[in-house]
Amino acid sequence: MTAETANHILKNIRIVLVNPLFGGNLGSICRAMNNNGLTDLAVVDPCSDMDMDEARRFSCNARAQLEARREFATLEEAIADCTVVAATSARTGFYRDTSYTPREFAPIALESAKDHKVAIVFGREDKGLFNEELALCSHIIQIPSSDLYTSLNLSHAVYLCGYEIFTAASVFQPSEETAPEADTALRERMFRMWREMMIETQFVHDQKLDHMMMGLRRIFNRGKLTVPDCKILMGLAKQSIWVANQWKTEKAKNDSH
Amino acid sequence: MTAETANHILKNIRIVLVNPLFGGNLGSICRAMNNNGLTDLAVVDPCSDMDMDEARRFSCNARAQLEARREFATLEEAIADCTVVAATSARTGFYRDTSYTPREFAPIALESAKDHKVAIVFGREDKGLFNEELALCSHIIQIPSSDLYTSLNLSHAVYLCGYEIFTAASVFQPSEETAPEADTALRERMFRMWREMMIETQFVHDQKLDHMMMGLRRIFNRGKLTVPDCKILMGLAKQSIWVANQWKTEKAKNDSH
Repeated sequence: MTAETANHILKNIRIVLVNPLFGGNLGSICRAMNNNGLTDLAVVDPCSDMDMDEARRFSCNARAQLEARREFATLEEAIADCTVVAATSARTGFYRDTSYTPREFAPIALESAKDHKVAIVFGREDKGLFNEELALCSHIIQIPSSDLYTSLNLSHAVYLCGYEIFTAASVFQPSEETAPEADTALRERMFRMWREMMIETQFVHDQKLDHMMMGLRRIFNRGKLTVPDCKILMGLAKQSIWVANQWKTEKAKNDSH
Repeated sequence: MTAETANHILKNIRIVLVNPLFGGNLGSICRAMNNNGLTDLAVVDPCSDMDMDEARRFSCNARAQLEARREFATLEEAIADCTVVAATSARTGFYRDTSYTPREFAPIALESAKDHKVAIVFGREDKGLFNEELALCSHIIQIPSSDLYTSLNLSHAVYLCGYEIFTAASVFQPSEETAPEADTALRERMFRMWREMMIETQFVHDQKLDHMMMGLRRIFNRGKLTVPDCKILMGLAKQSIWVANQWKTEKAKNDSH
């Protein structure tokens, strides 16, 4: 891959910070991004009294990167145009059993980023990402660390993910053109339709609905989901909803007899 | 390799900071070390008005690591008992043409650290390492980064080197027992002897002496140098010095005839 192609691909990879608290981290992250050829920084609902002097000081010569950041009110808005969206998480647990290391994730990000926007999402310094935020992401990244101290500094986590992608880019060979990948906005539209289908077909009780949706998200996010894939899945759900409505109508008729 | 063996090896790897300026970096480094199973921190001549409150704040739950650091007056003292000593450098240049990436260096460090102390040396935030400090090191590490912004935050550099070693440790297979490696103290004794030989044998002019010594250091540091290797090299130098003295004595005799 030429340096130009690599640069083009790296520019399609967005770093998304959710509710960051400390200016020092924000500044260090700008520098770490530029160290690894990344330029797209989105900040979701930053702490209102963040120390921006500290941010500028820690950004060193990446001050322009700091100024070029974009702010969003919600995570969903920050990643609406992205296809592959990876959440970083230190914890393991029910929805985190199919996580990738940053090194495993790097070629996935590069492959998608040749034609699409890709996001890597980082949570709060103190609390990480909430489950409903994890749900919006297609992949989960776990950074290897000692069992004795798993909590990473936020800027270290961003730097490491950027570094793995930057070093992978130098040896990366993009594959042939395929169908366009589905972005978050389309995927979420599809998931809402499947949720409706689960309700209409009485597939699950209300209490189990969210749990089942999480499982479904994992299944569909295991491989990449294209725009045609999403359309098929939406068609299926729509049809089941139609059938469920037919059934209810017929049943109502019969009940009134 | 068992987790216990890995822990033992990681404990033999020392992080050495030369003249660090900022408490925030020192604190972040303590946390980054513990994230990667490292515990041996040496600080050479730290800035006298370093902000230690900031250091404690940035160390988070690695406060004990911060307190456990050792301070040294000179780099030579901090690495006297180490065999493999790697300097990190952002610049390329005459003595930097045989550098390793952190990923290439990791198995070298692990191999040596199963029986010996290994050091990774990081320079000042603003000026890096000086040439005379680089000369004391057996290896040079360069961290891959974008050509547009090669200057890394100090704690990011330490974190990355630690991460590469930590992740390599999980798959590392130590080789069979071999001759003990030479530590810095022995290597420097050997180099002083070769320097004397160069002078006594009139091999080089005074102006070219330091330049030639740097070349020699690179040659001998390319592979690992064992204690027997050093003894052979010292024997050789000693013999040449003896010959040179014989020659001078004979010449003096002849001149007086």
